[in-house]
Amino acid sequence: MIYLDNNATTKPFPEVVEAMMPFMTTRYWNASSAYGQLDGLEEIVESAKSAIRSLIASESEDEVVFTSGATESNVWAIAEGERRAMGRGWVLSSQIEHPSIGEPLEALKEQSISVRYVPVTRSGTFDLDILAELVDSDLRFASLMLAHNETGVIQPIREAAKLIRERSPHCLIHSDATQAIGKVPISFTDELNQIDLISFSAHKFHGPKGIGGLVIRNGTNIVPFIRGGGQQSNLRSGTLNIPAIAGVNVAARKSLEHIKGDQIPSIQRLRDYFESRIAEIFPDSIFVGSQSQRLANTSFFGIPGADADDVVYALAAVGIALSKGSSCSAQSIMPPLTALLMELNHEEANSLLRVSLAYENSFIEVDQLIQKLVELLH
Amino acid sequence: MIYLDNNATTKPFPEVVEAMMPFMTTRYWNASSAYGQLDGLEEIVESAKSAIRSLIASESEDEVVFTSGATESNVWAIAEGERRAMGRGWVLSSQIEHPSIGEPLEALKEQSISVRYVPVTRSGTFDLDILAELVDSDLRFASLMLAHNETGVIQPIREAAKLIRERSPHCLIHSDATQAIGKVPISFTDELNQIDLISFSAHKFHGPKGIGGLVIRNGTNIVPFIRGGGQQSNLRSGTLNIPAIAGVNVAARKSLEHIKGDQIPSIQRLRDYFESRIAEIFPDSIFVGSQSQRLANTSFFGIPGADADDVVYALAAVGIALSKGSSCSAQSIMPPLTALLMELNHEEANSLLRVSLAYENSFIEVDQLIQKLVELLH
Repeated sequence: MIYLDNNATTKPFPEVVEAMMPFMTTRYWNASSAYGQLDGLEEIVESAKSAIRSLIASESEDEVVFTSGATESNVWAIAEGERRAMGRGWVLSSQIEHPSIGEPLEALKEQSISVRYVPVTRSGTFDLDILAELVDSDLRFASLMLAHNETGVIQPIREAAKLIRERSPHCLIHSDATQAIGKVPISFTDELNQIDLISFSAHKFHGPKGIGGLVIRNGTNIVPFIRGGGQQSNLRSGTLNIPAIAGVNVAARKSLEHIKGDQIPSIQRLRDYFESRIAEIFPDSIFVGSQSQRLANTSFFGIPGADADDVVYALAAVGIALSKGSSCSAQSIMPPLTALLMELNHEEANSLLRVSLAYENSFIEVDQLIQKLVELLH
Repeated sequence: MIYLDNNATTKPFPEVVEAMMPFMTTRYWNASSAYGQLDGLEEIVESAKSAIRSLIASESEDEVVFTSGATESNVWAIAEGERRAMGRGWVLSSQIEHPSIGEPLEALKEQSISVRYVPVTRSGTFDLDILAELVDSDLRFASLMLAHNETGVIQPIREAAKLIRERSPHCLIHSDATQAIGKVPISFTDELNQIDLISFSAHKFHGPKGIGGLVIRNGTNIVPFIRGGGQQSNLRSGTLNIPAIAGVNVAARKSLEHIKGDQIPSIQRLRDYFESRIAEIFPDSIFVGSQSQRLANTSFFGIPGADADDVVYALAAVGIALSKGSSCSAQSIMPPLTALLMELNHEEANSLLRVSLAYENSFIEVDQLIQKLVELLH
């Protein structure tokens, strides 16, 4: 399989699987037990938290809480937003968030909480002028993503958060950073320094599935969402998934090495090569968000006249994996919301495909994709 | 390590780890993608659901929804109970539930929902007389466990549910069956036929950590707890943890073989041998719940004068793993709630230890435990 859908999920680093194995075979203990403590399982949890902090340039006082993934983390953040807004304020988000933000936010309306969504400009970024018009001192919770799952466009989160903080100093600000963490250098102490909570999923940066987390800035109080045996300082109960945590530990450390090394520029060269070849072969092709700052690995492109669904299935049948956007919507007959918001016409929107690369991908693989696209569409 | 704490967690069957590996190394796809569908990932999910249905003798129309574990499943069931009771009814549970029931139920009181708890008799089972006095037609949600994590006592769930159903026909009834599933034959169509929802965790029956589920009886409508991309028929969103689901599939099938084979009587012989030897050596020893129907693998015993914490740590230091009850409370200085409820005196309660066996344990291991207890306490 030529795997070019790394924004959907990634192949775990071989070292991640290796790190998980002892905890699935011989050291399978419950971390809260006496013998689990003697065996050093708590140190593994601390080491993994520390690895996540390094990956996001966070301070040691910030809390990393492991969850079952970014979906749970997002839903948890919104539950806290609901608690804070209930009866005394409103909630802000954007029109391009992942469904794990959009769906729970829509459910808040049943609780009579007002939710307003900032649109994006044609460049795929939050419309900061409209944001400035919307925000007032009654805003209690905001959830704004860091990088978009389809376009890869990196959002002006620093500016948006600064504006919110000025108008509503006590507003809780959350960012779903799932697509950014492990792919770009991000800093909880720099461009995210006004953000209180961020979500991540390990399987987006070559870690295991079934684990992610919520990072909580030091001093931010939030009510637990999954209560029970009191694990993780009572913030998220449930038997600790030590194999997965050991995997996160390695995935975060290795991803940080990649970011500090030359992986990002080399992935970007591959992406740019792909886009320039497509532009040559299909002169009408479009590259959504390519005028904005984007994740180096992502190309969201359209070849007018192509039907994205047909292309995705035809490519899958010959062993090339990509998608037409968020894989959650693989079965959806609607064109991507993002495309419509960005004022593409219907034909353009229906043709959109996402290629999302990782360090394993090669020029040979990209050439094979291009050749198949030519066979299918030229 | 002599591992005798199988009610805390279990060693994954080697076949479980083997079944997970392909999905961590080569077939790591997102199950919702086109190529994931072509690769048959959805069939693996269906096969795992079918394996769970067989393990609990459930019908094919009943829905198995995978969650991150029993804690999430329990919290979800209670969230649905909250929705149903809000403003028009009350909620029932027992005094001996796991904290993942007790803690979220206590939080309901902040929503002004009345929660009443049925106590247990000295035999460790729900007091059905008190239950009969409590239940009325305003009861909207009940959560009653199937087997107790500390004593192993199997609860009169059929009688309790029948009584609730007679007095409040539309009451939603949930059972946390985490300690029973995989250890005793249970039937969603027989003794659990009045139960609408049951929770389980795979790591309690030699499956992977980080996955469990909620079984929803056909026709029962419940609101999703974790919303997002719409996976699992919109009931529980989040990228499917296919490696873990492949592991559950094997763990459920192998546990069912064990239950149908001679594993339970052979585990019970080992437990009974242990208790008879302890009773001979320590004539004052007590065996909590031993007059009741119990899980074959569990002994909750006390040797008066012993300090359970000291014993647990002393045994851990020589490579014997057991606990003083729920491992969530390993760091607690309180004696187990159960013991107090069952009218043990303080000295007895403080001495209580739990041995919980599995198919791998041998008479040699149990003899080594007995020898160490003699060295420590005789």
